[in-house]
Amino acid sequence: MKNTTLTSPKGFLAAGLSCGIKKSGNKDIGIISCPTGAKAAAVFTTNKVVSAAVTICKNHSKSASVEAVVVNSGNANTCTGTAGLKNAEIMCKIAAQLLDTKPNQVLVASTGIIGHQLPMQNVSTGIILAAVQLSNSQKAGENFAHAIMTTDTKCKQAFKTVKIEGKEICIAGTTKGAGMIGPNMATTLCFITTDANITKPMLQKALSEAVGQSLNKLTVDGHQSTNDTAIILASGLAGNKIINKADSRYKKFVVALFDLCTDLAKQMALDAEGATRMFTVAVSAAASKAEATKAARAVADYDLVKCAIHGSDPNWGRIICAVGSCGVKINPNKLSCSIGGITVFKNGQPVKFDPKKVSRIISSKEHTIAVSLGAGKYSDFCYGCDLSKDYVTINADYHT
Amino acid sequence: MKNTTLTSPKGFLAAGLSCGIKKSGNKDIGIISCPTGAKAAAVFTTNKVVSAAVTICKNHSKSASVEAVVVNSGNANTCTGTAGLKNAEIMCKIAAQLLDTKPNQVLVASTGIIGHQLPMQNVSTGIILAAVQLSNSQKAGENFAHAIMTTDTKCKQAFKTVKIEGKEICIAGTTKGAGMIGPNMATTLCFITTDANITKPMLQKALSEAVGQSLNKLTVDGHQSTNDTAIILASGLAGNKIINKADSRYKKFVVALFDLCTDLAKQMALDAEGATRMFTVAVSAAASKAEATKAARAVADYDLVKCAIHGSDPNWGRIICAVGSCGVKINPNKLSCSIGGITVFKNGQPVKFDPKKVSRIISSKEHTIAVSLGAGKYSDFCYGCDLSKDYVTINADYHT
Repeated sequence: MKNTTLTSPKGFLAAGLSCGIKKSGNKDIGIISCPTGAKAAAVFTTNKVVSAAVTICKNHSKSASVEAVVVNSGNANTCTGTAGLKNAEIMCKIAAQLLDTKPNQVLVASTGIIGHQLPMQNVSTGIILAAVQLSNSQKAGENFAHAIMTTDTKCKQAFKTVKIEGKEICIAGTTKGAGMIGPNMATTLCFITTDANITKPMLQKALSEAVGQSLNKLTVDGHQSTNDTAIILASGLAGNKIINKADSRYKKFVVALFDLCTDLAKQMALDAEGATRMFTVAVSAAASKAEATKAARAVADYDLVKCAIHGSDPNWGRIICAVGSCGVKINPNKLSCSIGGITVFKNGQPVKFDPKKVSRIISSKEHTIAVSLGAGKYSDFCYGCDLSKDYVTINADYHT
Repeated sequence: MKNTTLTSPKGFLAAGLSCGIKKSGNKDIGIISCPTGAKAAAVFTTNKVVSAAVTICKNHSKSASVEAVVVNSGNANTCTGTAGLKNAEIMCKIAAQLLDTKPNQVLVASTGIIGHQLPMQNVSTGIILAAVQLSNSQKAGENFAHAIMTTDTKCKQAFKTVKIEGKEICIAGTTKGAGMIGPNMATTLCFITTDANITKPMLQKALSEAVGQSLNKLTVDGHQSTNDTAIILASGLAGNKIINKADSRYKKFVVALFDLCTDLAKQMALDAEGATRMFTVAVSAAASKAEATKAARAVADYDLVKCAIHGSDPNWGRIICAVGSCGVKINPNKLSCSIGGITVFKNGQPVKFDPKKVSRIISSKEHTIAVSLGAGKYSDFCYGCDLSKDYVTINADYHT
């Protein structure tokens, strides 16, 4: 079987294991390594409270060459003050020493509970063991993907290839869900490796563009994490002539990267905390792009819409209520709505439809809600998921 | 036993009964009548999609003298187009005919499912029967209070008196919950009667002020309804000299009205859909009043905070995450948080505390979360409630 994990693109090794941060004994520490050095690009949370890992990673990601990423789950290292910052730095230092590189060439990310100091004895032992286990095997890639999981029930990975000037370029990614997900600049933890030969500025541009139309379009509960980080490392070993401008080669690369990120975003929606199904909200005829985005997100974040979808109830009035209350311009006499292509409300008037048919559509794994505001010519979309009792169970029981 | 319902202030009659809008057979239509004519003031939803009842009521509430309010539950008469507007007008016309007044002296309000036409045969029969049953008894006031309930498990009523120049003034109110509640200008349906002698402009000022600091401070799910309406009727029969300016008599009246509305708001929080407890979020040291309001509401609307409270989990990291992501100015080195008076995070650093003690505080019926942003001198507050599995059950099963 072909290796489709993070270790598939040329030049990458990975490892993931348990060092005891999680009481469950599940994997909680991982390393990605690129011994030949990789170009790195990253996008981060815009939450004003950020993890110590984000603070350090923002700085280190500026390095011209990055050799490793060290990640832990089970503890966010957020709201941990000066001790937390020092601990994030120590994680980079230990990894740098073991991998014979500089601390600022090591990126760091954390995810988990906020407000607790990292158990540094476990963490340092974990980094040492992970460094020893680094391998380019498929199993190693999978172990890393498992090590970043929190309340995820499934490990999320995606793999794409694209031919550029006869050279096959591989892109592999892994991400974690499953709650505290709101689309704003960057969502969740996401790690992508590629062997593409591309300059650092073009890699950053590609990542920002691809994430903006995929991971950033997903909302599980509208809650932006303090730890959101998406990192891409490019080893440059695919052998293509370096991509250094927004030409057709760049476009091919960014489309493949966008496909990969959309694949990961949809996996996240379907494995969101308690979710049983996902949906796309497509808003059209908005007065501006920003208002289209706002309205789409308002619907996807509306608990009553999410509950109705969970109950397979074609309660479209809640969709209209969400749109009406989010502050965007609407024309009440042109406002229209369809669910799975079936019109339920048109030009401000209710429309007769078969509720059983619409209920069946809502029951499926994925459907689309379309809302036309009648106020302009702009459109945008958003991904969301249903709200179930299990979301509450997971988040009432996930104790500190 | 003293009558403390809407029929207690001098001059008011009420009725409430079932006319078959609700399949359950519960009461769903009610009338308040003031045969001598009352000054009326009202505040309405700011949702851009509004009920036909809101459109008509906004217009009729301008009348110098109002003689009745007719209300139905079980159907919102929203997104019902031109037919809906006509039906809201017919409700006023039927009541006016029966009570020997003009249609524009009758106010109207609706609550329930969105997007369905009112069953007008039931509604008109209901109005006729209610008009016949009008009485100033306590039972009549209670029947009205029951007729406005939707998913409420308890009927919500409050009563206050205030002495102004030796005259006892009575104020009585009733409100409905229990979901789709977000504080913005007016929240839910709320009906208040008083025998105070007060001018229409001062009555409007008093209602806006009192609701602004009470009902508008409540959020159950952050969802502003399309039907929000708060109406106060003043019969003027208490015998006090007319209140026509913002003097000490006005202040006494507005304090009593504020107490009444706060009482109702807290009853709503505790009986919110699926709620088992309520909390106050008090934000201080914000850069502006608007930012204090925004931060308080961000915490109260944050599903992960609401779930943690439901689970009695002192997971304060989620509170800080909510504050950090809502867009207000914070000083990360001064950011502090306490729960029930116990400091859990101070000046950007975690603080050791007894988690069992804080868990006990969160388990109680009501507690306060205080957050200091360290960014200025402004403060504001908000009421919220926990998020339980029952919220999902209620809203996934409440079928169209």
